[in-house]
Amino acid sequence: MSAIPEDFIRETARLSEDVTRPFPRSRKIYVEGGQAGIRVPMREITQDATRAMQGDEENPPIYVYDTSGPYTDPDAAIDLLRGLPPLREAWIESRGDTEKLQGPTSEYGRARQSDPELAQLRFEHIRTPRRARAGANVTQMHYARRGIVTPEIEFVAIRENMKLDELRRDPRYAKLLKQHPGQGFGARLPEEITPEFVRDEVAAGRAIIPANINHPEAEPMIIGRNFRVKVNTNIGNSAVTSSIAEEVEKMVWSCRWGGDTLMDLSTGKNIHETREWILRNSPVPIGTVPIYQALEKVDGKAEELTWEMFRDTLIEQAEQGVDYFTIHAGVLLRYVPLTADRITGIVSRGGSILAKWCLAHHKENFLYTHFEEICEIMKAYDVAFSLGDGLRPGCVADANDAAQFGELETLGELTKIAWKHDVQVMIEGPGHVPMQMIRENMEKELEDCFEAPFYTLGPLVTDIAPAYDHITSGIGAAQIGWYGTAMLCYVTPKEHLGLPNKEDVREGIITYKLAAHTADLAKGLPGAQIRDNALSKARFEFRWEDQFNLSLDPEKAREYHDETLPKEAHKVAHFCSMCGPHFCSMKITQEVRDYAAEQVEAGMQEKAKEFREQGAEIYKEV
Amino acid sequence: MSAIPEDFIRETARLSEDVTRPFPRSRKIYVEGGQAGIRVPMREITQDATRAMQGDEENPPIYVYDTSGPYTDPDAAIDLLRGLPPLREAWIESRGDTEKLQGPTSEYGRARQSDPELAQLRFEHIRTPRRARAGANVTQMHYARRGIVTPEIEFVAIRENMKLDELRRDPRYAKLLKQHPGQGFGARLPEEITPEFVRDEVAAGRAIIPANINHPEAEPMIIGRNFRVKVNTNIGNSAVTSSIAEEVEKMVWSCRWGGDTLMDLSTGKNIHETREWILRNSPVPIGTVPIYQALEKVDGKAEELTWEMFRDTLIEQAEQGVDYFTIHAGVLLRYVPLTADRITGIVSRGGSILAKWCLAHHKENFLYTHFEEICEIMKAYDVAFSLGDGLRPGCVADANDAAQFGELETLGELTKIAWKHDVQVMIEGPGHVPMQMIRENMEKELEDCFEAPFYTLGPLVTDIAPAYDHITSGIGAAQIGWYGTAMLCYVTPKEHLGLPNKEDVREGIITYKLAAHTADLAKGLPGAQIRDNALSKARFEFRWEDQFNLSLDPEKAREYHDETLPKEAHKVAHFCSMCGPHFCSMKITQEVRDYAAEQVEAGMQEKAKEFREQGAEIYKEV
Repeated sequence: MSAIPEDFIRETARLSEDVTRPFPRSRKIYVEGGQAGIRVPMREITQDATRAMQGDEENPPIYVYDTSGPYTDPDAAIDLLRGLPPLREAWIESRGDTEKLQGPTSEYGRARQSDPELAQLRFEHIRTPRRARAGANVTQMHYARRGIVTPEIEFVAIRENMKLDELRRDPRYAKLLKQHPGQGFGARLPEEITPEFVRDEVAAGRAIIPANINHPEAEPMIIGRNFRVKVNTNIGNSAVTSSIAEEVEKMVWSCRWGGDTLMDLSTGKNIHETREWILRNSPVPIGTVPIYQALEKVDGKAEELTWEMFRDTLIEQAEQGVDYFTIHAGVLLRYVPLTADRITGIVSRGGSILAKWCLAHHKENFLYTHFEEICEIMKAYDVAFSLGDGLRPGCVADANDAAQFGELETLGELTKIAWKHDVQVMIEGPGHVPMQMIRENMEKELEDCFEAPFYTLGPLVTDIAPAYDHITSGIGAAQIGWYGTAMLCYVTPKEHLGLPNKEDVREGIITYKLAAHTADLAKGLPGAQIRDNALSKARFEFRWEDQFNLSLDPEKAREYHDETLPKEAHKVAHFCSMCGPHFCSMKITQEVRDYAAEQVEAGMQEKAKEFREQGAEIYKEV
Repeated sequence: MSAIPEDFIRETARLSEDVTRPFPRSRKIYVEGGQAGIRVPMREITQDATRAMQGDEENPPIYVYDTSGPYTDPDAAIDLLRGLPPLREAWIESRGDTEKLQGPTSEYGRARQSDPELAQLRFEHIRTPRRARAGANVTQMHYARRGIVTPEIEFVAIRENMKLDELRRDPRYAKLLKQHPGQGFGARLPEEITPEFVRDEVAAGRAIIPANINHPEAEPMIIGRNFRVKVNTNIGNSAVTSSIAEEVEKMVWSCRWGGDTLMDLSTGKNIHETREWILRNSPVPIGTVPIYQALEKVDGKAEELTWEMFRDTLIEQAEQGVDYFTIHAGVLLRYVPLTADRITGIVSRGGSILAKWCLAHHKENFLYTHFEEICEIMKAYDVAFSLGDGLRPGCVADANDAAQFGELETLGELTKIAWKHDVQVMIEGPGHVPMQMIRENMEKELEDCFEAPFYTLGPLVTDIAPAYDHITSGIGAAQIGWYGTAMLCYVTPKEHLGLPNKEDVREGIITYKLAAHTADLAKGLPGAQIRDNALSKARFEFRWEDQFNLSLDPEKAREYHDETLPKEAHKVAHFCSMCGPHFCSMKITQEVRDYAAEQVEAGMQEKAKEFREQGAEIYKEV
């Protein structure tokens, strides 16, 4: 008899069809690396030919970064009950610096494992966890600093390059490769991303590869301002709603639309089991905020939190495979009163929990005082820090204040300590910031935190548009991404109002994907404009199918088009519903071009006639 | 028997309920001016009190700019068949520089008037048009340059001020008035907007008040970078779909959500009659692109356009009351070949029509060669120029090229000519521009066009997100608005794909209202942050109703909230669905504050005890 609840099995038999259906005219390809087992996924989008008077002109395939994992590979056998194949396992094993444990070493992990009441919920095929051997350090930063190009590093280099070297040699891409110079604010974007470049960025702390040795299912990716800007999404049940099956489906959905990493912010029941299901099936790195679960363990009473139980929670989650932890170690006692005159006080959940703890005990934040011990845990599993901004502003009025910037300086201090342990670090940022104050955030972060990657929530540039905060924050995200933020944490239309449903999640992700992409364009990331150019060419040539297929959301683009002009014939028609058959500016422009070409032709014939009439002498006296 | 088609009467009996229903807790107020008949509409939003331990604390009403016209005034009698009251008529009359004509003076206008087949469509109560007396100039710019503060100018000053002087004297607003310094890029935003300031901005050409003497129904508004950033919306039937009733309803809908001006871009049948219905019922200035109708008159054959019939079209529309005309007079013959190598050629409809005409005739654009004659018409009715950017880029690859910037220089040349005639001018701008190239557009516009107001479409910052182009363009719009654009032309989610429906229009407008507002915040417009601060305070205090009511779209904010927590009780609950009852960071922050207050209190009691124990001496030796 299966240990999986009935309803979950039913869900599993097929993830909803809309979560896994292939993208139109798209094919999953894998680019192999030099080291064994490196197969980097990309999505290849095929285009129609351009129909010109002088015959068809081929339009080459376009390659796009693919976060969807095996779920969009028709050749992959998906079985949520078994989880994804552990693609990194052989690499980790071969390094010889880890050991397989007998089972979870955290008290809580052991308790959950042996609780018979959880049998119905528990993932069946839990691997025993792995940990660094005594004295070993298994972080990607540690390897990079020793000059090693790990398979993860090589994977990332191939993934970031997106076949660009190959396209440069192919004349069909010549025009598509044209791109405006970027303005990089100090970013260094090489023409070609080599494994050595990736390694050096990781070694310098300017980029991280979140890759817990207990999450071998994840496809390696990198977060740093000299690479593509990434997008994080959040899921998680809460005390109000919950279902493991829903959370797993949301995770796959998030990957489908382009989420590069995912945070499981569950606060309801069965956090441990939910996380296991997500991790085992997730092709992207997973982050958590361990203090949420710790608080759950003390029934929501912040003052009862202790270092010991928090430590146990870190180990519990590290052994499940969480790739990065949000740690609010910068919420210092002395910063808390600086928030008293704010309009919205402390809005970070983690920040408010720790502020309450500090005040209750009249003691310094235990995450700060135990920071080196936390580093010891992080490096034994390669969990990266996401140093939390517990004092981030909750409204534009509170932006860039003493509390926020005080904490940021402390995060810089902690970054140095983490780096001493070769532990990877990124820094969380705001929040709510009006446009004219965004750049100061980025500049201070680079300076105070020594160029550790910045990971921001928005920022929202105004507070007056609840129900549209994916947009108010998308505006800020595009700008801060341009200035140098490495990863953008998405916001959905339900922000401030309720829990996002599936459509909200999709809307939030696409908004952030376009914000991240426009930041790449503005910085001048090589090759970033190919997709814009290809889509624009398709649009101009009325290749409607290609316009849909090249877009971030092919399904919605087609759906919107079909609302006005549903007939198949219209998708090849040289007009669209905005202007009608007579009035299309693109049609007229084509006529202008044809006319201009005729004129040139006529002019040449006139010249030829003149030439003949004048006796066809090539050289003559003037 | 009525001349109005049956279905239109039915529509009219009531505009759809969702188009006119009052906003929650909102009341229309009117601020009177010094000159006769000035009643400036604003919306007053009432707030709940804050429930604090020490008793209730009043939250004062918030005032917001109101574009909705009489449609949201329960005391106004709305009759679409009669049109809105002509609020400016007495002002225009009293200036004594206009004459009432016997009827339309355009050939086309007369033909439409006397065509019995149009009886069913025709607006019943058409006023005879008004025109400047021979030799007179009736533009707001002309009056301003002669030092006159017209009622329109005073109206605008009161409207832009939003009672700010009054709020500054009221202690309840002290904290709400706190605002971050802006970064204005040369904008000059006075602490208080006086009628004299408005007059001087109009006189200098830095701002325009579009106010055709034949559109006395419109409530005066101003477009200039030293005022609130404005939003234009577009409506219009096309050959594919059409209905006058729908267009009128869309106009009211646009005003409801905050459209400051509206362009009627109809290209289908009965353009003339549709426009009359819209104008007579519109509380906002109406713009058109007369070349669209002119092309209609020659059955879509651009090469058959003539100056004479175009001139007749201008007079036809000016006598109906159109407030501004898009005129593509900068599409010069020599610029057209500069577009040949673009990825998307010429994408402006007007631009491509004129390019085709120029090439067909091997002649310079007739709008350019007849520009002074156009000015003569404009000043006889006070129609403002919106100098069209017919060569704007249609994709990011084509941004900021020689064709686009060549045309912009010509628009500057034309601006000078228009100003010689005291005709008001704004300049249209792109289009599709990646973020790092937006600022150059604004800087060149200010320089080449002598600070005439810039009116931009987006710009879209990437081409890869059809179905989300309200967002890709909203990102660009927020930035260019910050840099100095005076009015943003909205884009809906259907851009590039189809015709927007009602929900798309709303989505587009709110996106642009938030973009415009965030530009105001970033520039440092005095008072702009009040609404953000009030909403944030409401959010922090769990005043859910106030949070909804203060938002740009109260209905959607409430709807989204209610999806997760529909019960009325939850709207006063101190938690929300995101975190559940235990976990709310705002709740915890309140506890932190209370705790901190107790500590202070305890500390004081401790001190007091100490003081008593030490003999209660106030001064003692240290």
